[in-house]
Amino acid sequence: MARNIVPRKEDYSQWYLDVIKTAELADYAPVRGCMVIRPNGYALWESIQGHFDEAFKETGHVNAYFPLLIPQSFLEKEAEHVEGFAPECAVVTHAGGEELEEPLIIRPTSETVIGHMYSKWVQSWRDLPILINQWCNVMRWEKRSRLFLRTSEFLWQEGHTAHATSEEAMEETLKMLGVYRDIMENVLGLPILAGEKSEGERFPGADNTYSCEAMMSDGKALQAGTSHFLGQNFARAFDITFQNREGELDYAWTTSWGSSTRLIGAIVMTHSDDDGLVLPPRVAPVKAVIIPISPDQSFVDEKLLPRAREAAERLDTLLSKRSVRVDTDFHLRPGDRFFANLQKGIPLRLELGEKEFGKGLFQAVRRDTGERLDISWDQVEERVPALLEEIQQDLFAKALAFREKNTVRVGDFGEFKEVFRGRGGFVEAFFAGGREEEKTIKEETGATARCFPMDKEERGTCFFTGRPGARLAVFARAY
Amino acid sequence: MARNIVPRKEDYSQWYLDVIKTAELADYAPVRGCMVIRPNGYALWESIQGHFDEAFKETGHVNAYFPLLIPQSFLEKEAEHVEGFAPECAVVTHAGGEELEEPLIIRPTSETVIGHMYSKWVQSWRDLPILINQWCNVMRWEKRSRLFLRTSEFLWQEGHTAHATSEEAMEETLKMLGVYRDIMENVLGLPILAGEKSEGERFPGADNTYSCEAMMSDGKALQAGTSHFLGQNFARAFDITFQNREGELDYAWTTSWGSSTRLIGAIVMTHSDDDGLVLPPRVAPVKAVIIPISPDQSFVDEKLLPRAREAAERLDTLLSKRSVRVDTDFHLRPGDRFFANLQKGIPLRLELGEKEFGKGLFQAVRRDTGERLDISWDQVEERVPALLEEIQQDLFAKALAFREKNTVRVGDFGEFKEVFRGRGGFVEAFFAGGREEEKTIKEETGATARCFPMDKEERGTCFFTGRPGARLAVFARAY
Repeated sequence: MARNIVPRKEDYSQWYLDVIKTAELADYAPVRGCMVIRPNGYALWESIQGHFDEAFKETGHVNAYFPLLIPQSFLEKEAEHVEGFAPECAVVTHAGGEELEEPLIIRPTSETVIGHMYSKWVQSWRDLPILINQWCNVMRWEKRSRLFLRTSEFLWQEGHTAHATSEEAMEETLKMLGVYRDIMENVLGLPILAGEKSEGERFPGADNTYSCEAMMSDGKALQAGTSHFLGQNFARAFDITFQNREGELDYAWTTSWGSSTRLIGAIVMTHSDDDGLVLPPRVAPVKAVIIPISPDQSFVDEKLLPRAREAAERLDTLLSKRSVRVDTDFHLRPGDRFFANLQKGIPLRLELGEKEFGKGLFQAVRRDTGERLDISWDQVEERVPALLEEIQQDLFAKALAFREKNTVRVGDFGEFKEVFRGRGGFVEAFFAGGREEEKTIKEETGATARCFPMDKEERGTCFFTGRPGARLAVFARAY
Repeated sequence: MARNIVPRKEDYSQWYLDVIKTAELADYAPVRGCMVIRPNGYALWESIQGHFDEAFKETGHVNAYFPLLIPQSFLEKEAEHVEGFAPECAVVTHAGGEELEEPLIIRPTSETVIGHMYSKWVQSWRDLPILINQWCNVMRWEKRSRLFLRTSEFLWQEGHTAHATSEEAMEETLKMLGVYRDIMENVLGLPILAGEKSEGERFPGADNTYSCEAMMSDGKALQAGTSHFLGQNFARAFDITFQNREGELDYAWTTSWGSSTRLIGAIVMTHSDDDGLVLPPRVAPVKAVIIPISPDQSFVDEKLLPRAREAAERLDTLLSKRSVRVDTDFHLRPGDRFFANLQKGIPLRLELGEKEFGKGLFQAVRRDTGERLDISWDQVEERVPALLEEIQQDLFAKALAFREKNTVRVGDFGEFKEVFRGRGGFVEAFFAGGREEEKTIKEETGATARCFPMDKEERGTCFFTGRPGARLAVFARAY
């Protein structure tokens, strides 16, 4: 076991920070609550960005950039919005050596300033839909921060669309929820519950919020992305009007949807183990690391090095044909190397040793299971990508099995409380309560309604209010 | 001539803004001095980013992300640095509903906070070099702004490296200057003068600054990128020390280098004409637009449309094999279409008309020259990429010829002033003055020393001080 990582069972929070530290993903910044995303962490973010950006473009969206600073008065135009975000705002009061006439807010999210611009750009139904996404930093002041999960500044993307009809806007809201779910499941390996948020968990200013919820390996939930149907609320606040096909003036229907660097936290807490980071191959910036080993594995045999380098190069060439990016590590003592590469989460270790050369094969070691497999040289191009694919599927299946094992259904509040007195996890329950009931449940158990999962359209008696015909909700303690 | 664009000769500043507006590159934001980068402008930035990012990675750099907010005290640790940047700072004084103990600055550049992190990460010579780049937004408060050229917030990349020796740091400084120059010339089509900055134009806190200078089509200079040799100044201010190979404690040698969204302004002002934006093919997000035309060009013949669509699809398939991204435009009346696509700067217009179908060919129209060329269907894959390449080369050659035509050499201050009383341009002159002399020259002529070009290592008598052995400098009025 790694001596620089506290075991999960001993202290889950410390384990999480140790995994991030040993993988060199991030570090705390000198400004309270802010983080530095280190090169390994940023490469992971670039990989996540690449998958999302491609999917956004395939679904007809374009990127743009809106300003960091938002006039305070903008935030106040939508009543629920300002109530939700004002307490978290960072405020610029001075600039260019002078006090500003109106304080400026560092964007916590950009519905307001984007709404203002859309009102200038939209005149007729011909100008709709507008399908824009933005990659940027946002600021929500946090008293208690945790790397990737809760920091005052974080990186994210925010999509903002405007449509001529309510139906189109709702279709967009659900389409982007589907895009999120698809990439989160199939690339990041995170089993997702996608569904509508309860009243108390809705985005400030939205008519409906939908979210992707994932279970972390401590049984807590993490909201991995949200998609909001904003109705005409922001269009009214920012006067996004257009002449419809009938020649009448109407307010546009808008949506917004976002996902952030907290996805890195979700990956860490879903797949990693007591040896450190584990990355699903499709999102891993480096898929495999090639290391030479000596027969007794205690040191690198100097005589072996030239042959190992040559073999590594050959391997690299073969795998790059299959778009498999590999690194080589010839630097440290073998023990350190195994260790360092384990902790970085690289999905496969390819070991080149004298013994293996003789047999015309090499050993591949899976990061997720530790399993060793002999691969012959003539099978490299086929076996390595297949093995990576197998790891991808296995990690997802393992996470899904964990979630299923840690999900229970309850019928009344007594059973509900019992679960959260114990190990927690996801609790399914029919629920028809509102903000007040949600507040009580949270106070008594720490759990919140995560969503009404779309795949489970059952109805039943509310576990809390006893009302009939309640929708099935999933509750959990959440990050 | 376009009615929505003021001719260059009439009002260059207005022409510049009209080109940006008609190409929908950017818009002013509701916060004074800030801009919105619209989808067309952002696609151009993504293209520029892609080329730079690839080159940075090829030269061994990795990306990371450092915090937006910097403690005010950090800025004050390097004396020249704070003097240079303090007047332009935007200051956060309140956050999370409370007044902050120490005001925070929105980064104008990140040497300070990155220096602080490097001091934590570097212990031994084995930890060096650190080769990190960051893509982010920065804030330098401007009273008078101009889209892309001078805005309070802009997007850029900033490279920050730390080395064990002065020689290595200087090598890095010049290497990145070369990377800039290469991409600016070969992708953006901007002829570059690369050289060392004079004392008065140096980055606050640097030992030496090198820059890439381009001439705009009004004869003014635009600094397109800078690379700084920071010596041990920031290492001393932020205590970036390391144990060298001899076991002694030493300060690291650092560099920084940056280029920004003002490159979009440089592209606009180098290549565009009175009809609007012109983009060099290698940086253009869309290389060609396919439009159907009717025999008399006044409208799209309904009967032609199905055949045109089919042909467009075939063309798209052929060109995507050669990685040439094309758009199609079937929407507007032909006149509008020519116009809209002209103004967007798309390098080639591919016209599909009944007449051409009959002959088994179509017409390609060059955006830069208006020249029409018949291309037969069996030559598409070869001719279109070759034509794009020709446009790329021609745009560069034209800009270079313009610069050469507008560059003169002068021997004394009388001649120097004469040039800037007239049309301006670049003035070559031997110069051995310092900050004071530069100030006088600027006050009397508006011109500043742009750089001592590296390709012109001549020496002569200073035109201003009369000192012998002076280096050849290039002066110009600058954006």
